[in-house]
Amino acid sequence: MKIHDWHTGPYPARVRIALAEKNLQSRARFVSVNLWKGEHKQAGFLAKNFSGTLPVLELDDGTFIAECTAITEYLDALDGAPILTGVTPREKGVIHMMSKRAELELLDAISVYFHHATPGLGPAVESYQNAEWGFRQRDKALRGMHYFNAVLKNQPFVAGEVFSMADITVIGGLIFAQLVELPVPEECGALQAWYARMQERPSVKNRVAMSVPTGANI
Amino acid sequence: MKIHDWHTGPYPARVRIALAEKNLQSRARFVSVNLWKGEHKQAGFLAKNFSGTLPVLELDDGTFIAECTAITEYLDALDGAPILTGVTPREKGVIHMMSKRAELELLDAISVYFHHATPGLGPAVESYQNAEWGFRQRDKALRGMHYFNAVLKNQPFVAGEVFSMADITVIGGLIFAQLVELPVPEECGALQAWYARMQERPSVKNRVAMSVPTGANI
Ligand SMILES: N[C@@H](CCC(=O)N[C@@H](CS)C(=O)NCC(=O)O)C(=O)O
Ligand SMILES: N[C@@H](CCC(=O)N[C@@H](CS)C(=O)NCC(=O)O)C(=O)O
Repeated sequence: MKIHDWHTGPYPARVRIALAEKNLQSRARFVSVNLWKGEHKQAGFLAKNFSGTLPVLELDDGTFIAECTAITEYLDALDGAPILTGVTPREKGVIHMMSKRAELELLDAISVYFHHATPGLGPAVESYQNAEWGFRQRDKALRGMHYFNAVLKNQPFVAGEVFSMADITVIGGLIFAQLVELPVPEECGALQAWYARMQERPSVKNRVAMSVPTGANI
Repeated sequence: MKIHDWHTGPYPARVRIALAEKNLQSRARFVSVNLWKGEHKQAGFLAKNFSGTLPVLELDDGTFIAECTAITEYLDALDGAPILTGVTPREKGVIHMMSKRAELELLDAISVYFHHATPGLGPAVESYQNAEWGFRQRDKALRGMHYFNAVLKNQPFVAGEVFSMADITVIGGLIFAQLVELPVPEECGALQAWYARMQERPSVKNRVAMSVPTGANI
């Protein structure tokens, strides 16, 4: 399989982490799509993913699977032994809820802030910006950090007692937060402690090095 | 189990349709949360779902599961025989991708249009609006309709050869489109024909009648 992504992107990070957690690194070939040059908004890429975002998984039969959650579902099901998306109905429900909540309240909010209230990917790529909306999403993300901090005061992982896709989505959110210089507030000690633990996981630590385009800056 | 929802809401419709497709109606009790009175933004409800949206599934053990996709995963897994979310890794991946795409490019876009560029739920509930953003989302939803029309020219259902969660999400989008008077463009014949077929399904036809709060208008 091929993964179309950009090595430092926060969403691509989610799939790189999932790949490593599933020990599938050696089965994936990475194809670089340069976000900073806007390659994800060009016709060739839009034919792969109508929404014009990274990452996209390309199967050997030519099927394209976009959306981190969908790609994670695919990867986690491959060996018939899911460890990221739940086994019982309740686990599946809670993991999907917490992962979606991490998108809505944190990761996607920061992404909108980045693309709308900062220079984002630069004037050539960001052809429309709505700064007021972007700043509101930044404030939403800060509330999201407080929410996840409260969750992690009571349980070791975002969806409960075990590591899951929901942790990966919050990790993506905090990777993006760092890129836009939106630090986790000091009073969010549980979220900070959880993140420090997450960064010790090899899947998280080695995600960028998994594939770096020739000549690119890490 | 309990379903906290509002009988005419487009997102609640997704869960009502999933319930009926899985033949689980008789196991659910509906609790009405009045959107027009803003009950979903009050502390009691926010404790059930931090994001303040409907529907929310409440399990008998007290667990709350918000987010339509998460609730659908739960319901579909209950009997160990999924018919909405896929069985093979590829089916799971494609269904999740298409359902998420239907949210991003259609349903969620119309929701933002409704809440930001129309009176929405009224001035007491819509405490902040960004009309420019709302109108852009309306235009995005129209492009989304053209996209799904192109998909449905080539295959009978949104994620391929069989009915799935992805169809339900597009149905939710077109229910919302009707509410905000954003008709499917005439040139989108394949989407219109598919929607006419969908409306013949008992799960779709009978969704509102499944539970109507006492004294409420359908
Ligand atoms: N909903 C998508 C979002 C992916 C996304 O936004 N990816 C970023 C890369 S980190 C992107 O492509 N951004 C480019 C843009 O929005 O212009 C997913 O979950 O995969
Ligand atoms: N991401 C949520 C969205 C649900 C949603 O927006 N539901 C509507 C009801 S149709 C709602 O609660 N809207 C109220 C509001 O946003 O104020 C899901 O998929 O369940």
